[in-house]
Amino acid sequence: MKRPDDDSTGPAGLRDTQSEPDHRRIAIDRVGVKNLRFPIRVGIGTGEPQSTIATVQLTADLPHQFKGTHMSRFLEVLHAHGPVLHPEDIEHLLRTLARRLHSQSAHLELEFPFFLEKKAPVTGAAGLLDYTGRFSATADDKSTDLVTTVIVGVTTLCPCSKAISSSGAHNQRGQVTLSLRTRSPIPLAEMVTLVEQSASSELYSVLKRPDEKAVTERAYANPVFVEDLVRNIAEHTNHDPRIVWWQVEAENFESIHNHNAYALVTKRP
Amino acid sequence: MKRPDDDSTGPAGLRDTQSEPDHRRIAIDRVGVKNLRFPIRVGIGTGEPQSTIATVQLTADLPHQFKGTHMSRFLEVLHAHGPVLHPEDIEHLLRTLARRLHSQSAHLELEFPFFLEKKAPVTGAAGLLDYTGRFSATADDKSTDLVTTVIVGVTTLCPCSKAISSSGAHNQRGQVTLSLRTRSPIPLAEMVTLVEQSASSELYSVLKRPDEKAVTERAYANPVFVEDLVRNIAEHTNHDPRIVWWQVEAENFESIHNHNAYALVTKRP
Amino acid sequence: MKRPDDDSTGPAGLRDTQSEPDHRRIAIDRVGVKNLRFPIRVGIGTGEPQSTIATVQLTADLPHQFKGTHMSRFLEVLHAHGPVLHPEDIEHLLRTLARRLHSQSAHLELEFPFFLEKKAPVTGAAGLLDYTGRFSATADDKSTDLVTTVIVGVTTLCPCSKAISSSGAHNQRGQVTLSLRTRSPIPLAEMVTLVEQSASSELYSVLKRPDEKAVTERAYANPVFVEDLVRNIAEHTNHDPRIVWWQVEAENFESIHNHNAYALVTKRP
Amino acid sequence: MKRPDDDSTGPAGLRDTQSEPDHRRIAIDRVGVKNLRFPIRVGIGTGEPQSTIATVQLTADLPHQFKGTHMSRFLEVLHAHGPVLHPEDIEHLLRTLARRLHSQSAHLELEFPFFLEKKAPVTGAAGLLDYTGRFSATADDKSTDLVTTVIVGVTTLCPCSKAISSSGAHNQRGQVTLSLRTRSPIPLAEMVTLVEQSASSELYSVLKRPDEKAVTERAYANPVFVEDLVRNIAEHTNHDPRIVWWQVEAENFESIHNHNAYALVTKRP
Repeated sequence: MKRPDDDSTGPAGLRDTQSEPDHRRIAIDRVGVKNLRFPIRVGIGTGEPQSTIATVQLTADLPHQFKGTHMSRFLEVLHAHGPVLHPEDIEHLLRTLARRLHSQSAHLELEFPFFLEKKAPVTGAAGLLDYTGRFSATADDKSTDLVTTVIVGVTTLCPCSKAISSSGAHNQRGQVTLSLRTRSPIPLAEMVTLVEQSASSELYSVLKRPDEKAVTERAYANPVFVEDLVRNIAEHTNHDPRIVWWQVEAENFESIHNHNAYALVTKRP
Repeated sequence: MKRPDDDSTGPAGLRDTQSEPDHRRIAIDRVGVKNLRFPIRVGIGTGEPQSTIATVQLTADLPHQFKGTHMSRFLEVLHAHGPVLHPEDIEHLLRTLARRLHSQSAHLELEFPFFLEKKAPVTGAAGLLDYTGRFSATADDKSTDLVTTVIVGVTTLCPCSKAISSSGAHNQRGQVTLSLRTRSPIPLAEMVTLVEQSASSELYSVLKRPDEKAVTERAYANPVFVEDLVRNIAEHTNHDPRIVWWQVEAENFESIHNHNAYALVTKRP
Repeated sequence: MKRPDDDSTGPAGLRDTQSEPDHRRIAIDRVGVKNLRFPIRVGIGTGEPQSTIATVQLTADLPHQFKGTHMSRFLEVLHAHGPVLHPEDIEHLLRTLARRLHSQSAHLELEFPFFLEKKAPVTGAAGLLDYTGRFSATADDKSTDLVTTVIVGVTTLCPCSKAISSSGAHNQRGQVTLSLRTRSPIPLAEMVTLVEQSASSELYSVLKRPDEKAVTERAYANPVFVEDLVRNIAEHTNHDPRIVWWQVEAENFESIHNHNAYALVTKRP
Repeated sequence: MKRPDDDSTGPAGLRDTQSEPDHRRIAIDRVGVKNLRFPIRVGIGTGEPQSTIATVQLTADLPHQFKGTHMSRFLEVLHAHGPVLHPEDIEHLLRTLARRLHSQSAHLELEFPFFLEKKAPVTGAAGLLDYTGRFSATADDKSTDLVTTVIVGVTTLCPCSKAISSSGAHNQRGQVTLSLRTRSPIPLAEMVTLVEQSASSELYSVLKRPDEKAVTERAYANPVFVEDLVRNIAEHTNHDPRIVWWQVEAENFESIHNHNAYALVTKRP
């Protein structure tokens, strides 16, 4: 069995090793390109789509009878799609890829930094705070499964340390990873807000002294363990009718240890 | 509801915030410590157990009625176990942890470098080659699920490039990640050999000129795509009666691109 | 001794700890912010300035008599400058920062991905290839010292392996880091071209089969050691009258080893 | 001009490309191997030498008249030296390497994790805390220049936040990098202690509740900026007659920002 050659560019004389038959009878779940940097524009849910740089994994399944996939087509499909990447476009991109490769399904992982403008809580001094977004999607003829993830830095202050100490309480930067499957799109900016409201305090890029006083006191008034952080978020995601599935991880870069505290909850099916 | 205090060390006067009740009714799948560096000795399947440095994640579930876990106990259980860590010991370590935390199950991720002595193919010059091992285990009262992984560097030479070029063929370092669930233990060293025999050539630390000639010609004689690499390994794992489940990933640091070629196959249930 | 308070935002009531005197008589070379992600637009020397995401370090010296710097001003100066960052602007940004902080000098490190469109050598198929750029600058009242760096992926094919083997030759992805001090600006795109022409072959994102044949044969016809790579570049930089100082590093991700080959040359004063 | 062939292993028939002449008249400062993992045993200054895994860079200069170095000899010299690596041995290793390569000087970079047992401050619960060590050495016929570095995690509590807030103060994990050139060896363990005593608190792996109370209160009682941290250390290193040169960096993973605070001081010549 032979796939049609990639005849748009392949001259008759060059052997198409990839399209030769394979006899091991092992279909491959995912084959393609990984760790590719690519400039994209992505909608955050507030303001214009943002220009950013994504790290991309783009794969498709390979039926058992073919020796190899055609790697250049992954790049061609990505380049042909162009830089503006709305979550709504991912399904079309993956189906185009699957069709060109004679695959049943295709898969995308896309991770990128993005920014939200944030005003300091007292002085209102404006600054840009950075986050990480991720789209993970699989599409076949009939359906598309999209998981949207944000990675958000927060402040966490330890309830135990506060309860037992005569003054102060250890606190630290934490990092929350929230992943969702949704019925209707939930913007990245809204996912960030949900996470930030579940912590002892949100982070800021610019804080003047009156702001620093405010966030210090706010964190002291709102102690959370990593356990509290993931439960605070889970309570919200459990009650949001738009959300079909969720997973939340919290990791604290403990200020009193050289290891991290960690918690994970996933919605049970 | 209240868990017994950590009375071996906790003086009566200090409030045990973690043991206080929680009313959100959300059990936590995994809570514990992450990104902890810890010295271990681990059996490779050849020679004495090797001293190495592991990066550890150690977690347990938290029933919904408790506010927090007791983080110090994860460290105490790990320290009490001591440095020599055979895969056979993991079950005991995890059950000890679950018991001390009043959890139903506990989970461990342990990743570490290890070394095999390898002789150059012609001159026999000896050298140490490095690999990465990983144990991922979950245990409850009744059973333990252990996944053993090796990450192995290899040489891959492109069959397409060889077939179409009048001289030479692009080749590169690749990296294979092989994970197994087994009926009986398969040593890390044996997993490494399986991967190395499936590539265009294995890697070496010391190669004199006659050796370099031999590995260059061997790779040229044995071209493999990432697709071939994962299938070569899958053929073996499919036929090994000791192996219950397997997953294999291959990633080529392509010498003609700035992105990587990637393939993944998982045994279907 | 006391610095004027940061009176634009600091209410009279809040103590300015940073401006308090220090008696240890130790001036600090660099103090400020590090590992800050910030969106910028940067001119590459071809086409429009590109939108990208920089990782920023921004510091200033601290005279011995002050206890601390004012961290929020680093962010304010960066935000006030705005996103478009031409190398010509860096001097102004650093002097503004030094003035606001009562420092003698200020220092910037800025690293970011950027892209060049590249056409495949036979079919002309277009694709975007990624590079890393870096500006490292120190400015005081009188002068500015700017070092511009590009990190460029290349193909290297081993001359020894080719000379001794009956067929093929090991080759791999390599990475070249070229840093320059110049009399007049040299665009990043021109620095990339210099590096790419010194290797066995340049890299591409899209290669169809006729292109893959061409780059395979080109690399085989142009073998280079890491030593050749850095010397090829040094020969050019030594003879370019615009270049005052240069340093070049090459690192090969050897396809036959699990370690890298490395070479470094710096222009002698 | 031709170097003697590597005749211990090179058969007469194989061309020694590396030893062929080069006419570009560019000597190379450093050429060799990088990013090599290698098991070592290293003395910490307390207890037995520790087994650990080093990441190694090993290079030598290459005179202008030779085309290439002989990469396999770097590995042979390292393997011949064996695993136990005392700082006192580095000079001999580098001179052996330089002699075998007909180089004037050789250079080593060696980075590795190490551990110290630490008892919790109140309960005395024992645990292992991890650090990173680094040896950076250059040797020629006449002299050896050795720089010894430790990277140490600490707790820092912000003096400004404490001074202006009605309760609490932001604190975080910080990381200090201390490098020394010394007249007589100073053990890694002693360098660690110097750093830990200069912070708001040292870190621990095991802390029971009475310990957590103690370290929380200790940090609150000893606030330091990154500026204070580097000055506290500089005061000591300036007055230690064994120390010829020093450099200290501090980086705080700020709990209220997503970027880090950073300070650097180097001893003026």
